[in-house]
Amino acid sequence: MISRISRRLPQGAGVLLGPGDDAAVVAAPDGRVVVSTDLLVEGNHFRRDWSTPYDVGRKAAAQNLADVAAMGARPTSLVVGLSMPADLPVDWVDGLADGLREECALVGASVVGGDLARADLVVIGVTALGDLAGSPPVTRSGARPGQVVAVAGRLGYSAAGLALLGSGGKAPESGPLAAAVEGHRRPRPPYAQGPEAARLGAVAMLDVSDGLLQDLGHIAGASGVRVILDPDAFEVAEPVLAAAEELGADPLDWVLGGGEDHALVAVFPSAVRLPPEWRIVGRIETGEGVLVTGRDEGPRGWDHFQ
Amino acid sequence: MISRISRRLPQGAGVLLGPGDDAAVVAAPDGRVVVSTDLLVEGNHFRRDWSTPYDVGRKAAAQNLADVAAMGARPTSLVVGLSMPADLPVDWVDGLADGLREECALVGASVVGGDLARADLVVIGVTALGDLAGSPPVTRSGARPGQVVAVAGRLGYSAAGLALLGSGGKAPESGPLAAAVEGHRRPRPPYAQGPEAARLGAVAMLDVSDGLLQDLGHIAGASGVRVILDPDAFEVAEPVLAAAEELGADPLDWVLGGGEDHALVAVFPSAVRLPPEWRIVGRIETGEGVLVTGRDEGPRGWDHFQ
Repeated sequence: MISRISRRLPQGAGVLLGPGDDAAVVAAPDGRVVVSTDLLVEGNHFRRDWSTPYDVGRKAAAQNLADVAAMGARPTSLVVGLSMPADLPVDWVDGLADGLREECALVGASVVGGDLARADLVVIGVTALGDLAGSPPVTRSGARPGQVVAVAGRLGYSAAGLALLGSGGKAPESGPLAAAVEGHRRPRPPYAQGPEAARLGAVAMLDVSDGLLQDLGHIAGASGVRVILDPDAFEVAEPVLAAAEELGADPLDWVLGGGEDHALVAVFPSAVRLPPEWRIVGRIETGEGVLVTGRDEGPRGWDHFQ
Repeated sequence: MISRISRRLPQGAGVLLGPGDDAAVVAAPDGRVVVSTDLLVEGNHFRRDWSTPYDVGRKAAAQNLADVAAMGARPTSLVVGLSMPADLPVDWVDGLADGLREECALVGASVVGGDLARADLVVIGVTALGDLAGSPPVTRSGARPGQVVAVAGRLGYSAAGLALLGSGGKAPESGPLAAAVEGHRRPRPPYAQGPEAARLGAVAMLDVSDGLLQDLGHIAGASGVRVILDPDAFEVAEPVLAAAEELGADPLDWVLGGGEDHALVAVFPSAVRLPPEWRIVGRIETGEGVLVTGRDEGPRGWDHFQ
């Protein structure tokens, strides 16, 4: 099984020793390595009847690669642990490997190792490594009053798609509703904007895993500041609007509260000139917490432990 | 919960950014990083009624740190994903963190990050990083005819202890039988001997995870050689002998076939002068497979997928 999977996982130039030994060896040219890990549990983070194994592989890789990008680093490699029931079809594992590989290919990273175990449910443990190329890591604690908050990437797609899948109807196959469902199954983090934000002088950054408001709360807390968001500054995407209309929901709830799109949100000095991938959506003030102008109480992000 | 755990996990000098951000940043002074991952599943790799959470933490760290040492590297850090049922007592997680921390402390490594998820069973995903300090990694493929096979660390303890626990009696509390059970709960890999073997010129190495015969089969296969073991060369430890007597078993079955002690087995040029931590137990010949002198058919190591 391990050699079957390994054949689906080509190794890039930065991989000095790939799968098949006790450990892999990966180039860390910067002399530091960025490392992040996530566990995806069937029934909690994905459903096998709602997502193909390929989708799960794409998403499992994406959420870890986005964590590395959110430090301002370039992802170099993944290692993956997979627990699975005895009756899991082998082509499910093939599909997972294909999804991991193709998401990694977007950033030039490789799946360099893994582990297989038996369990009654599918659990996927992914660890991503990355290289900072000489830059300091962009943490959560550097935001200061007077600076601006900007977002790159999608917001609201994943929550809208999940709501559509959960509404009990048949999954839409085309049009904006299908795009929302696709956004849930395969997030599209703006990986290149992580190192780009570092280059542009970002002083704080993270990827939106649990919802913009909840995640910005981490920057507010770590930096000791208040984040003010302007709801009119967001451009709500057509798939999110269409899903909101279909389900009678407020699209801004998904944009501000929905997780798992893995957009990047960063804080920049106010004089920054941002490329078109970034949209300024708020500012930093003295105080604490996250405030949305004109909304008394913001929705909360999705918390795995709620 | 995450901050509660983080407080139990001090960060060493090589940790440039510890837990609490999207990713950690760890020194990789060699310009390369060694990485290995394992998944431990409750009921398969450990039982909560047979091991304390502290033991599970020690073992989860040990098996990954040993993989790094088996490349000839010094472990620097761990990241850990933990899925757990809603009713898992919080002090179980405390104990796990304490065990991870103390096993890491043996090699100067730190637990630099993690992830928590909910699931119906406890699954622990551990990824270890390490530094080669300028040496080439010691892989499985460098063994050549005429060289010698040597072992450092314990063999047979874990299998003997598991057999005692599985025999249905009360777990022994002292004496050699208790030492065998302790060996199952807390393996003691000879970490320092990994880089030491590299320094001594080891041409192939791995840690014994699945049983010496099975794991040496990987070296035989990857190197295209035959491994010949001399059963009389092994010194069977008192706890293993005592457990074999207690259960009417052949202690050599555990020494040759038992996994999870995470001893290091390495192949050296025949002229090597080995320190007392290493014991020569066999040699490399042309051919294939692993042969034990005087035994027609060796026992098989423990395979998670059998």
